[in-house]
Amino acid sequence: MSGEDAPAQQQNAVDQKQETKPAEEPKAEPPKTESAEAAATPAATTEKAPEEETFTYRALVLTGYGGYDKVKLQVKKGKPALKAGEVLVRVKVCGLNFADLMARQGLYDRLPSPPVTPGMECSGVVEAVGEEVTDRKVGDKVMVLNRFGLWQEVAVVPASHTFLIPDGMSFEEAAALPVNYITAYLMLFDFGNLRPNQSVLVHAAAGGVGIAATQLCKTVKDVTVFGTASASKHEAISQGGVTHAIDYRTKDYVEEVRKISPKGLDIILDPLGGSDTHKAYNLLKPMGKLITYGAANMLAGQRKNLIAVAKNWYHQFSIHTLSLIQGNKSVCGFHLGYLDGEMELITEAMNTILDLYKQGKVKPRIDSTWHLEQVGDAMRKMQERNNIGKVILTTEPMPEEEKKEEAKKEDKKEDKKKEDKKKDDKKKDDGKKEEKKDDKKKEEPKKEEKKEEPKKEEEKNEEAKKEEK
Amino acid sequence: MSGEDAPAQQQNAVDQKQETKPAEEPKAEPPKTESAEAAATPAATTEKAPEEETFTYRALVLTGYGGYDKVKLQVKKGKPALKAGEVLVRVKVCGLNFADLMARQGLYDRLPSPPVTPGMECSGVVEAVGEEVTDRKVGDKVMVLNRFGLWQEVAVVPASHTFLIPDGMSFEEAAALPVNYITAYLMLFDFGNLRPNQSVLVHAAAGGVGIAATQLCKTVKDVTVFGTASASKHEAISQGGVTHAIDYRTKDYVEEVRKISPKGLDIILDPLGGSDTHKAYNLLKPMGKLITYGAANMLAGQRKNLIAVAKNWYHQFSIHTLSLIQGNKSVCGFHLGYLDGEMELITEAMNTILDLYKQGKVKPRIDSTWHLEQVGDAMRKMQERNNIGKVILTTEPMPEEEKKEEAKKEDKKEDKKKEDKKKDDKKKDDGKKEEKKDDKKKEEPKKEEKKEEPKKEEEKNEEAKKEEK
Repeated sequence: MSGEDAPAQQQNAVDQKQETKPAEEPKAEPPKTESAEAAATPAATTEKAPEEETFTYRALVLTGYGGYDKVKLQVKKGKPALKAGEVLVRVKVCGLNFADLMARQGLYDRLPSPPVTPGMECSGVVEAVGEEVTDRKVGDKVMVLNRFGLWQEVAVVPASHTFLIPDGMSFEEAAALPVNYITAYLMLFDFGNLRPNQSVLVHAAAGGVGIAATQLCKTVKDVTVFGTASASKHEAISQGGVTHAIDYRTKDYVEEVRKISPKGLDIILDPLGGSDTHKAYNLLKPMGKLITYGAANMLAGQRKNLIAVAKNWYHQFSIHTLSLIQGNKSVCGFHLGYLDGEMELITEAMNTILDLYKQGKVKPRIDSTWHLEQVGDAMRKMQERNNIGKVILTTEPMPEEEKKEEAKKEDKKEDKKKEDKKKDDKKKDDGKKEEKKDDKKKEEPKKEEKKEEPKKEEEKNEEAKKEEK
Repeated sequence: MSGEDAPAQQQNAVDQKQETKPAEEPKAEPPKTESAEAAATPAATTEKAPEEETFTYRALVLTGYGGYDKVKLQVKKGKPALKAGEVLVRVKVCGLNFADLMARQGLYDRLPSPPVTPGMECSGVVEAVGEEVTDRKVGDKVMVLNRFGLWQEVAVVPASHTFLIPDGMSFEEAAALPVNYITAYLMLFDFGNLRPNQSVLVHAAAGGVGIAATQLCKTVKDVTVFGTASASKHEAISQGGVTHAIDYRTKDYVEEVRKISPKGLDIILDPLGGSDTHKAYNLLKPMGKLITYGAANMLAGQRKNLIAVAKNWYHQFSIHTLSLIQGNKSVCGFHLGYLDGEMELITEAMNTILDLYKQGKVKPRIDSTWHLEQVGDAMRKMQERNNIGKVILTTEPMPEEEKKEEAKKEDKKEDKKKEDKKKDDKKKDDGKKEEKKDDKKKEEPKKEEKKEEPKKEEEKNEEAKKEEK
């Protein structure tokens, strides 16, 4: 994910035209029927002009830090140039990650300053290859991992950041896999050194990384998985392999774990940060490994919540070596976004994961698929923890009738914005009032009155299958 | 090593008689010819009286915190009673460890307050077994691992803390193996997750753990070992498997490593603490593991050096999770002395190590063997880093002529004490003057004018072989 240059250069090289009403425009969309084969013909990098000028594509752009509405759909003009070693990918599906939510609030320093296109992973078809690219060809179906810049219809990335999609894997699955599975894999098997008979605590077990981690745990003999999630998700995570589902909203997860495993746990994956990292450390067995990989507790409300951020800093876990020595413990930090230049390691992990996929041992679970126009709602669903599995975006154009629906909803969206504002203010108040309570509890999402319907899962899979033919 | 009870109870149960001149007394020594078979006959635990009273054995006792002379040889009376699950071991050879040196200065909280017998490992022969012991029998040759209490001729320990000595392993090797090899093994393969093609930094590569770690690294394909040691030891450590020997006294080891491995290292074993832990952290690659297992920098001089201790505390490494996350790094603490109650894990590691020994892949290297009377000099050799490999003690009685030699040296010892005092004072001064310099450099031992000759290695091995017959 050292592909900093590519998308940044794209940002500067092409004209940017901001749409005020995201759902309206997409005029110059590539024809829906465009297939990998069709795209192959005009894709030579040496071709110049008129296409360079007439080529347009839609891109999501973070225009500034703030709420869900800061990510806008824009149309860009001009075909991005390819440098040696790069490929141009026609993007089909994009994955959403927690880092994207942090980035929108200005809490993720791996994303350049706005305006910038977010997006760390996607699936699509190679439409052009640059010089010196020998292992990818036009028409290859690939999944892509990049530091940012993948939430758009066309992306230029180093070929080394692409992975061939195996037979039988849909574009949806392919977009849902890279970040979550590589993250879970490296945490469990590199830092965690997971072995048979061990015990693992997976927070947010119904989230993307949570589901991936649970599936990967089950590839090792007799591993006990403790998974936290709200009660409504327990059936799903138990079916997914969680041995002991814990409702962190109504119960003290530390107590629940101790009841079953009094000596503590071998591995704890901690995406929360703050006071939960302290709890995790105390819950480790001798030779136990705590792997912290985020600070989700910092995210309270859709805009940066300074109290939550400050509290997270204040409670940030800090450890002395003497304590580690006397406890025989390990504390690790992981974030795929900072693993720049470690593509060899990442590729090795990816190959193992794809082998497990082919053996039927892991399979991304899709929560919902959204159009680019709906990115705000997609982010909301994830941030409010209403998802079970991965939230993804499709680049497929929104049908006309849906667009009209969206337009009608614009008014309602305005209402929702006010509602969000109120919620945020309330959260801030809560923050002030409940400073001594755990961060996590505060994030309990309020039930929403109305929600855009995401594209139906079955429908999408059908289309994906057609496309693969 | 949960055997707290056994030695402690021993301490209280038997009479203690302190010798003022260590070399003089040992009257009631067990006959030199006593073999495992001979010992087997009178060993039934049910026997009572007169033996209980006439039974005596020599034991090293830490009488207070301080210099080398605080460990005294005493004669104890009364046969220790055996509880269920325990065995009585007639000790042949004891291993010295860094923790013993720390303990003497009052810097190791796993040793009860003086008077107490130190010693975490030994080899010997089972002389009696308590009830419920099914897997050990009288005459078994064993190595023992315990929290303390093994520097004596007779030790009572839980049977689970003993491991059968494999064929062909001498008592010397057996006493040198447990602490160093289990420590190195768990650090490299549990926390470190060492894999082919990785790079490892081993500090004090000529020390007991250093040599064990180097040998264990070489059991994995294409592992590069960076080893620090003073120049005079480079030939030995290179032959032992160190790829790049670095003289930390004349060169900046960080620079030396960077020259060869600009991206840094996969695993760093850190026995030093203080500022060296900071250096190690910065020298890690992404996904790198720093395993800290001591604070040797605290040991400056033979008595507790408050400046060195304070400096070590002041420079003690402390890490925030955010730094770990952004660096994709792992910081682990290890100390076998705190792994109480994890005998299953330890036994598993030991079995693997013994398999490697049988395959000829690991073999403890003995630096020197000393009589119990010489424990002060043995500790000095280790603390002043003059050893290559393990420093061990034999319980074999000192020949009469050697005793006379020792007695003559007593006067010289008095001189040496003054010399030591001067050294310590000088160190304190140095400490004040050079507070900004690295801790380690200060420990550079002055060349000594005279030294007792330890028992010759070859001679000892010959005897060991005879004994095994």
